[in-house]
Amino acid sequence: MDVEPPKNLKSALYVPNKTLMGPGPSNCSERVLNSLSNPVLGHLHPECLEIMDDIKEGIKYIFQTRNEATMCISGSGHAGMEAALCNLLEDGDVILFGSTGIWGHRAAEMAKRYGGDVRFVESRFGRSLNLDEIEFAFEGHKPAVFFLAQGDSSTGVMQTQLKEIGEICRKYNCLFVVDTVASLGGTEFYMDRWQVDVTYTGSQKVLGAPPGITPISFSKRAMKHIVSRKSKVKVYYFDATLVGQYWNCFGGSRIYHHTISSTLLYGLREALAQICAQGLQAVIKRHQQCSDRLQHGLSELGLEMFVPNVAVRLPTVNTVKIPVGVDWRKVADYTMRKYNLEISGGLGPTVEQVFRIGIMGENATFERVDLVLNVLHEAIQSAKQDSNEKSKI
Amino acid sequence: MDVEPPKNLKSALYVPNKTLMGPGPSNCSERVLNSLSNPVLGHLHPECLEIMDDIKEGIKYIFQTRNEATMCISGSGHAGMEAALCNLLEDGDVILFGSTGIWGHRAAEMAKRYGGDVRFVESRFGRSLNLDEIEFAFEGHKPAVFFLAQGDSSTGVMQTQLKEIGEICRKYNCLFVVDTVASLGGTEFYMDRWQVDVTYTGSQKVLGAPPGITPISFSKRAMKHIVSRKSKVKVYYFDATLVGQYWNCFGGSRIYHHTISSTLLYGLREALAQICAQGLQAVIKRHQQCSDRLQHGLSELGLEMFVPNVAVRLPTVNTVKIPVGVDWRKVADYTMRKYNLEISGGLGPTVEQVFRIGIMGENATFERVDLVLNVLHEAIQSAKQDSNEKSKI
Repeated sequence: MDVEPPKNLKSALYVPNKTLMGPGPSNCSERVLNSLSNPVLGHLHPECLEIMDDIKEGIKYIFQTRNEATMCISGSGHAGMEAALCNLLEDGDVILFGSTGIWGHRAAEMAKRYGGDVRFVESRFGRSLNLDEIEFAFEGHKPAVFFLAQGDSSTGVMQTQLKEIGEICRKYNCLFVVDTVASLGGTEFYMDRWQVDVTYTGSQKVLGAPPGITPISFSKRAMKHIVSRKSKVKVYYFDATLVGQYWNCFGGSRIYHHTISSTLLYGLREALAQICAQGLQAVIKRHQQCSDRLQHGLSELGLEMFVPNVAVRLPTVNTVKIPVGVDWRKVADYTMRKYNLEISGGLGPTVEQVFRIGIMGENATFERVDLVLNVLHEAIQSAKQDSNEKSKI
Repeated sequence: MDVEPPKNLKSALYVPNKTLMGPGPSNCSERVLNSLSNPVLGHLHPECLEIMDDIKEGIKYIFQTRNEATMCISGSGHAGMEAALCNLLEDGDVILFGSTGIWGHRAAEMAKRYGGDVRFVESRFGRSLNLDEIEFAFEGHKPAVFFLAQGDSSTGVMQTQLKEIGEICRKYNCLFVVDTVASLGGTEFYMDRWQVDVTYTGSQKVLGAPPGITPISFSKRAMKHIVSRKSKVKVYYFDATLVGQYWNCFGGSRIYHHTISSTLLYGLREALAQICAQGLQAVIKRHQQCSDRLQHGLSELGLEMFVPNVAVRLPTVNTVKIPVGVDWRKVADYTMRKYNLEISGGLGPTVEQVFRIGIMGENATFERVDLVLNVLHEAIQSAKQDSNEKSKI
């Protein structure tokens, strides 16, 4: 042997139990975690295909869609983003990105690699886009595809009026892609009613499944566009016609496309079953009530929300201004060290500016909200004391 | 609500326990399955990064490489294939596929979509390629990249002489990609010694982890090629410079690239730890001894191997000719129905021609080999009796 086995792999795996109240992943329920230890199934075994069928119906429910082309991509939320873009785009297609934070830019980076002609319409920092701004950009750019994140986890901004934006897309004969990774289950979303052509979401946020498998749905209009492309979809692994065939979306026989992770199917199936048992509207209401309680508590602590307009605050990822003179790293370190509680700093444009507090899935309870408020308060006091002591020295 | 929750998600998840002796996935050990129920960790938590470091060292061991650019792709083996190809290929690059079954063609389908100029050198049915055939193809095509599967799971052919093929690649200044999805751990593989530039393997075969995460390694030469590309790698999700940065392959700070599935990391880490504890050479020897025992037993049952040359039979996926007059579906159904034992039919060129018997990981024991021999014999007898009875009617 040229290379010896590493010493670190002689020790046993150790995984601490944390309370994940950053921007995701959130904590899985016991039911979901237990399901993951089930034996692996073959990717074409009837029991595996049945679980995929169950998941497909569950996804239709959470997206509120009847789209046949509803499936999962075997990869993280980023893979869902890739799949949405590479299926729709051909070389030179104009794609307009509505941006309220980092995610429009991340998606644009992907779109450029697929040969897309990338344009932007950007909101003011901490704001959402209004319909006039969007329609003005449509007039100027005449996009073939419009991409938007319903919730941008970097800023905590929620884009509202998706129904009206859907109408603008139809008016300009443009395909409408909505990223619901951070928002789904925390706020209303109606794929069909709002005429959304492609949407995908994260398994590891409100749904409370492990990451690694990403629900996605394509409208009839999107599929019609895809099957009449001039060139093949650039990535075989993400090709919606092939993945959809494996997920039995179009009738005919199932065709082996890749080896799906039955383990991740188990977790997602159980997470969807829990959402179904609670009812989507109740889940959304619970998330909103928890976010309201959090915002109220933060205000009582003298903390200010980053997003000024209450109506466009994302309930799932709450962004809070870092008080002057406080080192956010010390606060986040304190909550993790002392309470195994994750509170996150900013991302992209909000780095050093905000805390991000996730209220998602299992963590969307008043108990968890009160916990995070108490711990955050204690951690900020401790960080302030630290810097006072330092300034005395 | 426009769409109601599906009824099927009201029932509990049920997963049967099977003995998976098809071409993969194989059965996971109890240790691996138990690890999957650990709580989810954040993708940038230090404990998660430490597990990734452990995995990276484990992958270096199984590939026998010291490559810095050793990491995982967050997707199935197909995603590893995509990553190998899209990182190396630019529009118009000539790529030569050595084919001993289906996998060269599947990879070629991907390469075409990336703009590769695709050529083939094909072995005779059930044979491996010899060095003369390969060098002749190099002379004719002058490829920039040469792709080969060490083991083709559709035919059960193992391509030997990889060291010599590596030398041919150097001689023609060509990058050498080896797919070890079905072979690794069942036969020797020395990435560095054999001058392989990119390799990837399946987590769910000999390693015995769940599918969904794919070990991959890039040589210095491959990385030099990638960083001096004229165009960006077409898929952000598979970009080795970005994934490698997240996996801390190049020094500097880790940069968030995507949300990795900590669940799948746990399983892979424990699977690698088990391989390390047993020692790679012992693992390989065990697989070979089991395959020998299987082949001997099959011969005693009067069954014939599909690959005539003993030296190029893949020990992990054993292809057996279907006896005349036997319906392979009846045999596979019988073993599954009566014993929850998976034996597989052919794939691609071998459909209706072979049984595929997987001897991988947990299933590479004499007990399992004897089980599969006994059950196969019984199933074939039953299928013969069926067709005899039918012919009487």
